[in-house]
Amino acid sequence: MTQPTTHQFDANLDLLLERVVDVPPDFVWAAWTRPDQLKQWFTPAPYTTVECQIDLRPGGMFRTVMRSPEGQEFDNVGCYLEIVPNERLVFTSVLGPGYRPSAQPWELPFTAVISIEPSGSGTKYTAVAIHPDETTRAKHAEMGFHDGWSAALDQLVELAGR
Amino acid sequence: MTQPTTHQFDANLDLLLERVVDVPPDFVWAAWTRPDQLKQWFTPAPYTTVECQIDLRPGGMFRTVMRSPEGQEFDNVGCYLEIVPNERLVFTSVLGPGYRPSAQPWELPFTAVISIEPSGSGTKYTAVAIHPDETTRAKHAEMGFHDGWSAALDQLVELAGR
Repeated sequence: MTQPTTHQFDANLDLLLERVVDVPPDFVWAAWTRPDQLKQWFTPAPYTTVECQIDLRPGGMFRTVMRSPEGQEFDNVGCYLEIVPNERLVFTSVLGPGYRPSAQPWELPFTAVISIEPSGSGTKYTAVAIHPDETTRAKHAEMGFHDGWSAALDQLVELAGR
Repeated sequence: MTQPTTHQFDANLDLLLERVVDVPPDFVWAAWTRPDQLKQWFTPAPYTTVECQIDLRPGGMFRTVMRSPEGQEFDNVGCYLEIVPNERLVFTSVLGPGYRPSAQPWELPFTAVISIEPSGSGTKYTAVAIHPDETTRAKHAEMGFHDGWSAALDQLVELAGR
């Protein structure tokens, strides 16, 4: 039984990317949950994802290391909260493995809800970033949330054609 | 099936209260999860808990309002992470309902893991507070974690005798 999400979208605090893509839900799910897959699409070029660790259970670690074209690395450790295969993945930057509060929550504090549902032969893909306040939401928007997550999704879709 | 906790105890970062009490596990569970029960024991006297809201599911709200003898109120909103009836309850101060990162995490950032297991006719009760760093752990210890949570547990046990 799939429980409904407890999250209520708040346009003042949250950011939303909603698209229909021409790959099936299980492909999107694998792309998000298999490190070998995720490394190939997660970071918009010319940045790359050079490491990925996934402990796919509530309280489990979600870690990625991004590398800039100049070679600077960004080590981001988060925590999974909800896992509903082929439907919903929730993780947060403010907790680490075992739900330990993060000393430094990535670049900003947010929780992400990735929702996947069938749409024809493809997938309706919804990514929501949830923030504590309007300032953090604005910062995330200025950092390029929408374009960045959308470009990454394009890379995910390109993976299917390989 | 009960999943094992993902939390690994770290003596440098965590605080622990472990006691055996003479009330059964289901009584302890009800005391933690029913607002009418929780309000009677959760805050060591002379402080009181004057409000309690519980949405007992992952991502659901855990809110208490404490009142000092002078009438000052402290409104603490947290979020449940894991719920295993009569066994384990996990919540955090760094997220609110729907996993939204908290703008102000109570008095300090922590996650609590309450573990309950049968011990003779009573309960082995384990409360762990998980912190991001040694400074926060020290602050929580100085605020009286051990004596406070132990005094509250005494009040819980007293409830059973009424």
